Amino acid sequence: MTTLHKNLIGNFIVDKKEIIDFTNFSSLNDYENSEKEEKKLIKKYKAKLASKEQKKELLPLLNNQKYFQVFRSQNLLLTKQQIKHSVNEDDLVVQTVNNMNELDTTANTLVKRLREWFSLFLPELDKDVYNHEKFAELVATKTKAQLVKELKVNTKESMGADIKKVDLTQIKLLAEQIINLYKLRDEHEIYLEKIMLKYCPNFHAVAGTNIGAKLFEHGRSLKRLACLPASTIQLLGAEKALFRHIKTGSKSPKYGILYTHYLVQKAKRKDRGTVARSLANNLTIALRIDYFKGEFIGDKIRENLERKFGYKRDEKDFNSEDN
Amino acid sequence: MTTLHKNLIGNFIVDKKEIIDFTNFSSLNDYENSEKEEKKLIKKYKAKLASKEQKKELLPLLNNQKYFQVFRSQNLLLTKQQIKHSVNEDDLVVQTVNNMNELDTTANTLVKRLREWFSLFLPELDKDVYNHEKFAELVATKTKAQLVKELKVNTKESMGADIKKVDLTQIKLLAEQIINLYKLRDEHEIYLEKIMLKYCPNFHAVAGTNIGAKLFEHGRSLKRLACLPASTIQLLGAEKALFRHIKTGSKSPKYGILYTHYLVQKAKRKDRGTVARSLANNLTIALRIDYFKGEFIGDKIRENLERKFGYKRDEKDFNSEDN
Repeated sequence: MTTLHKNLIGNFIVDKKEIIDFTNFSSLNDYENSEKEEKKLIKKYKAKLASKEQKKELLPLLNNQKYFQVFRSQNLLLTKQQIKHSVNEDDLVVQTVNNMNELDTTANTLVKRLREWFSLFLPELDKDVYNHEKFAELVATKTKAQLVKELKVNTKESMGADIKKVDLTQIKLLAEQIINLYKLRDEHEIYLEKIMLKYCPNFHAVAGTNIGAKLFEHGRSLKRLACLPASTIQLLGAEKALFRHIKTGSKSPKYGILYTHYLVQKAKRKDRGTVARSLANNLTIALRIDYFKGEFIGDKIRENLERKFGYKRDEKDFNSEDN
Repeated sequence: MTTLHKNLIGNFIVDKKEIIDFTNFSSLNDYENSEKEEKKLIKKYKAKLASKEQKKELLPLLNNQKYFQVFRSQNLLLTKQQIKHSVNEDDLVVQTVNNMNELDTTANTLVKRLREWFSLFLPELDKDVYNHEKFAELVATKTKAQLVKELKVNTKESMGADIKKVDLTQIKLLAEQIINLYKLRDEHEIYLEKIMLKYCPNFHAVAGTNIGAKLFEHGRSLKRLACLPASTIQLLGAEKALFRHIKTGSKSPKYGILYTHYLVQKAKRKDRGTVARSLANNLTIALRIDYFKGEFIGDKIRENLERKFGYKRDEKDFNSEDN
């Protein structure tokens, strides 16, 4: 009885426990598109495809030094290709989210320095402007005289030193850098939204970009997130409080990352736990639809939730929740 | 006997333990430029300037409610002005040095992220290019195809995924940011050198910009640095080893920040302690000359040191030591 046995390195025609013909695959492409070749061989030798049991009997035949090197290199190539193809949206999302966090930390560190540095010359601005981004922008774009005028600083009473142009230049350069870092963060956010709209539209519709991104950071992939129980989604980001609860019996946390979701935020204090639970349930549904490539019903899920908790949509809220 | 007593709020003419005339200063400027006024009053009343002992007797006369408010506000103004004028090169140097360190940390954090992110698409570059700045520059300026060609990557074997333009854009933006951070660091260094050349030329001539800046970071001001003994200068930056030495009797450190100085670097291992000590001595001399506004002899100090340790100047070394 003649059988055809195909593996990573080629097609083997086996007859009476001996290899009588062998065509090797020169590349992985050959391996992947070998059907034609197979049909030819089957026709030529009137062979059958080897069954599982027959394959077991075949294995000792391949235990031959001359095949080892080929097996090894083909296997390596296959693995490398699999690694190559394993890069998907999950990786992009996680890298982007992580980088956004790092940009935040970075920009904040530099803003602290900027505030200290500029305060040598105009301490009033530090007290007056809380927002980091705005602070950097003011320093970068305005002269000291303009700022003094805008803040209505009493120059007699001000403790800021006079500033030379060379010194100010360095500070302005730093401020510009900081603005660029914040801008890059915003760019990343837009990019992230685009990926999510395509990759997990349902999840994105319910969670929004920011919260979605943070959940991704914890889950690391859509698959893992979709596999998590809703109760875990509800508490992602509240690990510390959860373990304290388990260890010392303190109050159990009711929400982690979801706390910043607009539905939880708009709810009354006593209802927030309920809202978070319901939200987590629906997020889990959305995640699973996305993972199994289901239809887009994210907007309906969202509307249902909003109706359930008596949330009146206001175009302003709808947008601000993403920021 | 008539005396003139001047203080923060005005000129007092006192006769027989009573104030008979008083001109107040409406601003601190009046206080600082009051000589003319003083002379007039002295002439008018044929008064003398109050001696120290007479002043003591005068104090009870001023113990009057009506002066309190004026004293308080004038004092506040004076203090604020003193704070304003206390900002000097020390502060600028320290802020710049600190910011350079922060820029370094920041850029390195972001480069790590860049390497991880870009390695999804071309892992070979990460292994091939150790220098962070160069890595960022390559990512920012070249396409993947160009890099593949330059690195002679075997595309069949590469584990890097194919990259879409949208994804690459974000990575390139990050790389550009990183380059800008490094550039800003370099700008700061040039600026720092300019300040130091003017503020402490002798110190700068012997230590160089980088080591000088690091010493400033520890000393916080020229005054404090100039007051430190040479042995402390020698060990700045080796505090941990020093205290371990004191506590456990381990070997005493021979150099801290000075270790990276080109004279120490070029010396033989066994001579390095001696060189560091001599260098510290000379740095201390240079610092004191600078603090007390002496002449510029920094180049001579440097040459002496170089001759002493048989160092042959090589224009290349001379520059590279500052980098």
